[in-house]
Amino acid sequence: MRVVVSIGGSVLAPDLDPDRVAAYAEAIERIAADGCEAGVVVGGGGVARDYIGTARDLGANEVELDQLGIGTTRLNARLLIAALDGRANLSPATGYDEAAAALRRGEVSVMGGVTPGQTTDAVAAAFAESVDADLLVYATSANGVYDADPNADPDATQFGSMSPAELVDVVLPMSRDAGASAPVDLLAAKLIDRAGIRSVVLDGTDPEAVVDAVLRGDHTGTDVVP
Amino acid sequence: MRVVVSIGGSVLAPDLDPDRVAAYAEAIERIAADGCEAGVVVGGGGVARDYIGTARDLGANEVELDQLGIGTTRLNARLLIAALDGRANLSPATGYDEAAAALRRGEVSVMGGVTPGQTTDAVAAAFAESVDADLLVYATSANGVYDADPNADPDATQFGSMSPAELVDVVLPMSRDAGASAPVDLLAAKLIDRAGIRSVVLDGTDPEAVVDAVLRGDHTGTDVVP
Amino acid sequence: MRVVVSIGGSVLAPDLDPDRVAAYAEAIERIAADGCEAGVVVGGGGVARDYIGTARDLGANEVELDQLGIGTTRLNARLLIAALDGRANLSPATGYDEAAAALRRGEVSVMGGVTPGQTTDAVAAAFAESVDADLLVYATSANGVYDADPNADPDATQFGSMSPAELVDVVLPMSRDAGASAPVDLLAAKLIDRAGIRSVVLDGTDPEAVVDAVLRGDHTGTDVVP
Amino acid sequence: MRVVVSIGGSVLAPDLDPDRVAAYAEAIERIAADGCEAGVVVGGGGVARDYIGTARDLGANEVELDQLGIGTTRLNARLLIAALDGRANLSPATGYDEAAAALRRGEVSVMGGVTPGQTTDAVAAAFAESVDADLLVYATSANGVYDADPNADPDATQFGSMSPAELVDVVLPMSRDAGASAPVDLLAAKLIDRAGIRSVVLDGTDPEAVVDAVLRGDHTGTDVVP
Amino acid sequence: MRVVVSIGGSVLAPDLDPDRVAAYAEAIERIAADGCEAGVVVGGGGVARDYIGTARDLGANEVELDQLGIGTTRLNARLLIAALDGRANLSPATGYDEAAAALRRGEVSVMGGVTPGQTTDAVAAAFAESVDADLLVYATSANGVYDADPNADPDATQFGSMSPAELVDVVLPMSRDAGASAPVDLLAAKLIDRAGIRSVVLDGTDPEAVVDAVLRGDHTGTDVVP
Amino acid sequence: MRVVVSIGGSVLAPDLDPDRVAAYAEAIERIAADGCEAGVVVGGGGVARDYIGTARDLGANEVELDQLGIGTTRLNARLLIAALDGRANLSPATGYDEAAAALRRGEVSVMGGVTPGQTTDAVAAAFAESVDADLLVYATSANGVYDADPNADPDATQFGSMSPAELVDVVLPMSRDAGASAPVDLLAAKLIDRAGIRSVVLDGTDPEAVVDAVLRGDHTGTDVVP
Repeated sequence: MRVVVSIGGSVLAPDLDPDRVAAYAEAIERIAADGCEAGVVVGGGGVARDYIGTARDLGANEVELDQLGIGTTRLNARLLIAALDGRANLSPATGYDEAAAALRRGEVSVMGGVTPGQTTDAVAAAFAESVDADLLVYATSANGVYDADPNADPDATQFGSMSPAELVDVVLPMSRDAGASAPVDLLAAKLIDRAGIRSVVLDGTDPEAVVDAVLRGDHTGTDVVP
Repeated sequence: MRVVVSIGGSVLAPDLDPDRVAAYAEAIERIAADGCEAGVVVGGGGVARDYIGTARDLGANEVELDQLGIGTTRLNARLLIAALDGRANLSPATGYDEAAAALRRGEVSVMGGVTPGQTTDAVAAAFAESVDADLLVYATSANGVYDADPNADPDATQFGSMSPAELVDVVLPMSRDAGASAPVDLLAAKLIDRAGIRSVVLDGTDPEAVVDAVLRGDHTGTDVVP
Repeated sequence: MRVVVSIGGSVLAPDLDPDRVAAYAEAIERIAADGCEAGVVVGGGGVARDYIGTARDLGANEVELDQLGIGTTRLNARLLIAALDGRANLSPATGYDEAAAALRRGEVSVMGGVTPGQTTDAVAAAFAESVDADLLVYATSANGVYDADPNADPDATQFGSMSPAELVDVVLPMSRDAGASAPVDLLAAKLIDRAGIRSVVLDGTDPEAVVDAVLRGDHTGTDVVP
Repeated sequence: MRVVVSIGGSVLAPDLDPDRVAAYAEAIERIAADGCEAGVVVGGGGVARDYIGTARDLGANEVELDQLGIGTTRLNARLLIAALDGRANLSPATGYDEAAAALRRGEVSVMGGVTPGQTTDAVAAAFAESVDADLLVYATSANGVYDADPNADPDATQFGSMSPAELVDVVLPMSRDAGASAPVDLLAAKLIDRAGIRSVVLDGTDPEAVVDAVLRGDHTGTDVVP
Repeated sequence: MRVVVSIGGSVLAPDLDPDRVAAYAEAIERIAADGCEAGVVVGGGGVARDYIGTARDLGANEVELDQLGIGTTRLNARLLIAALDGRANLSPATGYDEAAAALRRGEVSVMGGVTPGQTTDAVAAAFAESVDADLLVYATSANGVYDADPNADPDATQFGSMSPAELVDVVLPMSRDAGASAPVDLLAAKLIDRAGIRSVVLDGTDPEAVVDAVLRGDHTGTDVVP
Repeated sequence: MRVVVSIGGSVLAPDLDPDRVAAYAEAIERIAADGCEAGVVVGGGGVARDYIGTARDLGANEVELDQLGIGTTRLNARLLIAALDGRANLSPATGYDEAAAALRRGEVSVMGGVTPGQTTDAVAAAFAESVDADLLVYATSANGVYDADPNADPDATQFGSMSPAELVDVVLPMSRDAGASAPVDLLAAKLIDRAGIRSVVLDGTDPEAVVDAVLRGDHTGTDVVP
C-alpha cells in the first residue's frame, strides 16, 4: 500500500518537543516496516505562526508570509527526517517529482510546503495524486470532519464516512467564514475530489492513531471514500 | 500603476494565430508605454486540452496532466515573449520571485503555470499578491461575473461590481458543479480575498478591452473592489 | 544490451493519437522486458512545427524557435512517460547526466531536446555516447539512408550497411541543400562517427520495427557499422 | 562605500520582535540612503538554537544541525527583507554570486548561511571578500574584541584597534576552549586576514551603533585594520 | 552595435599568461567603451587538451571528454572575467538566457561551453543568434578562411569575403577530413547560415585585431556576409 | 565500514599522469570491493595553482581565486570518475546531500570543492560528518602530523596517535604562520573535533597506503582518535 500522511505542524511539533517528533518517526517507521510506501507532508505549526505574525507586523504581503511558512515546514520536516535516522530522503523534497523519486528509492519521502498560495493540506493531496496513493491521512488537531465547528456548536455531528464531493460541500462554507476552521483546506478537498483519493481525517495527537488507521483501517475520524 | 493581466490560453492563442498574439503584445506594450509595470500570466488553451486529452487516455494521473498543462502555458508564454520583441523577460518565469525580478528590471514579466494543483488563475492572483499589484485583470472568454452561468440561464445577471468576499461566494457553488464554469477559479478568488486585490474580470477577445480597463478604468465586465 | 532509440515527433505523435503513443510505449517495454537498458529521445513533430511557424511570423529568432521546439519535445516525452506507466523517469531528463542516472536506476530514460542549436537527432547520439550504448536506433519517417532523396529521385538506392564515415559523407551534401532532408542530422552523424556508435536508421511508422531491430537485429533500414 | 554587516541572530531577532527588526531595517536604509552599497548577513539566534537542540536530541549529526541553522538564518533574513520593503533582494541570497548580483542591481543584499561547516561570521567575511567591501561590521552581543572573555575575567581588556593577524591570534585560543566564546569565528578571522578586510566588531544591541560606525567611523568596539 | 567574440582557448590563454589575458580584457573594454554590447565565448586551449588527453587514456567516452573541455572553458572564462574587473558577469554564463541577461544588464557577457556535443564555436554562433548580434568575430589561430589548409597547401588562397552558405561549403570537406582543421566548426557554420549572422574570421593572436575589426571593420581575415 | 578519503590534488594528479589516477581508482575500487562505502574528495593541485597564480596577477580577489580552485578540483574529480569506469557518480557532487545520495545509491561518491572559504580538507571533514563516516583518511604529501614542520625542523617528531583536540592544538600555530603548512587545514581539524571523527593522516604518494590504512588499519602516518 502507498500512503501519504499529512501531519499538521501543531501536531508534529507544537513546541519542538523531541519526544513528540520521535514518536511520529516511530509511527511512520512501523507503517514502512509493514511494507507500506510512506510519504509525509509536514506543516508549519507554532514557529510558522510566530514568524508570520512578526512579518505581518512588518508589512509583509501574503506571498512573503507563505514563504516564511514554507521555510518553517521544511525545518519541521528536517526534524522528522533526523528522527527517521537514514530511512528518509536526505532533505525535504521541494516538489512533487522529487518527493515521488524518494518513494521510488524506497525511502520515506518527507516534504513541507511547495509554493505560495498552496497549503500543506493541498500539497499532501497533490503528492497523493502524483504517486497514485492508495490512502491519504490527515493527522490534524480535529478528530475528523463535522457538519459544523465542534468547538463552537455542541450539536456538531462528525461524519463517519463521506464522499469527496460531500467533503467539498462541507468544507465550502467553512472556508467562506474566516472564523471557522475547516479540518482540511478547500483546495485540498477539491484535489481529493478530482483524483478520487481515499482519505482519512483523524486526530493526530497520538501518532498511534495514524498507525492504526493505515495498517488496520481502524480509527475514530472520518473516512472519505470515492 | 502595477498591473497583472491573466490571459486565458483560449483568449491568447485559440489556434496559435500570430495576429492574435501580436495584438495582445501590442496591447501590453501600450499599457507599459503608459508607465505601468505589467505582469502577464498566460493560460494553456487548445494545445493544453489536446495534450491533456491524449494523456488522460494513456492513464496519466491529475498531476501528470497538470504538468502537461504547465508546459503548454510556457510555450504560449514564449509566443507572447517573442511578440514583445525584447521588452519582456527572456523566458517565462517559473516562480513568483523570478516573475517579480523581471518587473524590477523594468521588463514586462511573462509567466505560465507554476506547480501542479494551482491553476493559472491562481498563479495570476499570487503573482499580483507578491508584487502588491494595484490591479489584476482576468481576460477571459466570459464578460465578467454572473450570478448564474450565462450560457445556461437566460436570466443570468452580470455583477457590475462586487467585493472579493462576494466573488468567493459566487464562485463557490460554480466550482462545486462540474458542469458550470466559473469565470475565475475558486482558489484565485480566495487569494484575491485574502490579499484584497482590486480586480477586473472582462471579455478578453479584443485585447483593446484590457488596455481600456487598465488605462482608463473603462470596461463592460465586473469590478472586484476590496 | 544498452540501446538508445530516437523517435521523431511525427513518428511518435503525428496528431497526438494516444494509440500511437501507447503502441510505442509497448514496444519500448518489450525491449526493456527482454533485458535491455532503454533510453528514448523524443522529437517535436507537428505541434512543434505549429508553434515554430507562429513564432517565426512574430519575429522570433532561431534560438527562440529552438526553445519552443525543445518545450514541445518535452511535452511529447511526457506523453510517452505517461504511457510507460511508472517504468520511466518521472519527468523528461533535461541533460545527459540526468538521462544516464535514470538508466542507472533501472528506469526507461526518456528525454527531449537539451539546448538550442542541437537537434534531437544529435541529442540521441550524445546520449548514446554518454552511456556507451551498444546500439542507437533512429525511428524516422524514412526507411534508412539513401544515396539521394528517395522522394525526389526514383533511382535513389538505399544503403544496407555503411560506416559512420560514409554516413557523414552521404549526409553532408543533403545538409547543404535546404530542399533535401537528411534521414539523420549532420551533427548527429558526426557524433556517431567520433564515438563509433553502432546505429540503425529505419522506418518507425510501425513501432514493431524498432523491437525487431533491437531484439533480433532484423530490419529493412540501414545499418551503420563502425 | 561598500559595506557588509553581519547581524547575529540574537541581535536581530532575539524573540522575533518586529520592532527590533524594523529598527535594524531602518538603520540599513539610512546607510544605503547615504550612498553606501550594503550587504547584510543574518544569523540564526534563538529559533536556530531551539531547532538544533531538538534535532540533537533526535540524534542528528553536525551537518544536519548546520542545515537547520542555515534554514533559520534564511527565515530571519526574510524578516529583514520584509522590513526593508522592496529595497532588498526578493529572497535571501544562497551563495556569493547571488549576493553580489543583488548589490550590482542596487539592492540591499541580504543573505543567511550558505553551506554546512561555515558559520554566518565566515559567510560575512567571504561576502565582503567577494565584493571587495571597504568595511565589514560584526554587530554582535559583545562590544568588540577582548584579550580574555569579559564575562569571565574582570580584567579583560578591549582592543581599540588591532591587525587581522592579531585578531586571528586572539581568537585562536578562544576557539580552542569550548567554554569561551570568540566575538568572531576563527574561520572568519582567517578570511579577514587573507583578504585584508577592514572590519569593526561592536555591540549591535542598538542598531544606531552600526549606522554611526559605518557613516562616521564612530563606535566603542574594536577596529580591525589591515 | 552588438557583437559576440569567440576567443579560442589557445588564443586567450596558450600558457595561462596573465599579460595575454589582460590584453584581451583591455581589447574587450575598448569595444565596450565605444558603445558596443559585447559577448565573449572562451575556448579550452592547452589545459583542456591536457585533461582530455589524460581522460582519454583512462577510457573516458566522448561526452566525458566534452565535460572536461567545458569545465576548462569556464576556468578560462573566469580569468577573463577577473581581468575585466567588475565589467563582466560575476561567473561565466552556462546557457543562452543567462548570457543574454548579462548583456541586458549592461555587462560584458562571458561564457564558455554549454553542453556536450556542441563546440565553443557553435556556442558563439548560438549566442549571437539568441541576441540578434550585429557581428560575430572568431578570433582564431588562423587568419581567416582558406580554400585549403594553408599549413599543408602553399597554394591555399584566403577568402576575403564569402556568404554563410559558401562558408558551410568550404568547411564541409574540412570537417570530413580529420587531418585538416576548419577555422570554424561545421555546426557553427550551419548556425551562421540559418540565422544569417554577419561574421568575421581573423587571426586573434593580437587582440588589437579584434578591436580594429569591430570598431573600424578593418581586418585581414575573412568576412562572412549574409 | 563507511570511509571518506581526501586526496590532495598534488597527490592525485601532480602532472595529470593517467597512471597515477588509474592507480588511485584501483585503490578505491579495492576498498569498495571489500564492502566499504567510499566517498572521495579531490583537491586542486598544480593546475589550480597555475590558474590561481594567473588570476592573482590579474587582480582577482580571494573568492574569485577560490572559485578557480573549486573548478579545478571538479576537473580532477572527473578524472577519477572516468578512471572508476561507472562505479562512481556521473559527475562530481557539488554539495553534501548530493554526495551522500551517491553513497546511498551504492556508488563511489566523488566530489571536489563546495564553496569559497572552505578548503577541500574541510569539505572532506564535513562530508564525513554528514554521512557519519567511520573513518576519514587524508592522503597528503606529508606522512602524518608532526609537532613541527618536518621540512624545516630536523627534530620534528611525528605523532603516532592523537585526539582531535590535540590535532586542533597542533594545527593552530601552523595555521597562524603563513610559512609553515599544516598537514590538515585548521577548519577541517575543528570539524573533526566537533563531530569526533576517527581520522588518519598519511602519505598518499602510494595509493596502496590508503588501502592498507582502510582495510587493515595499517599505516605509518598519524591516527586521530576521538
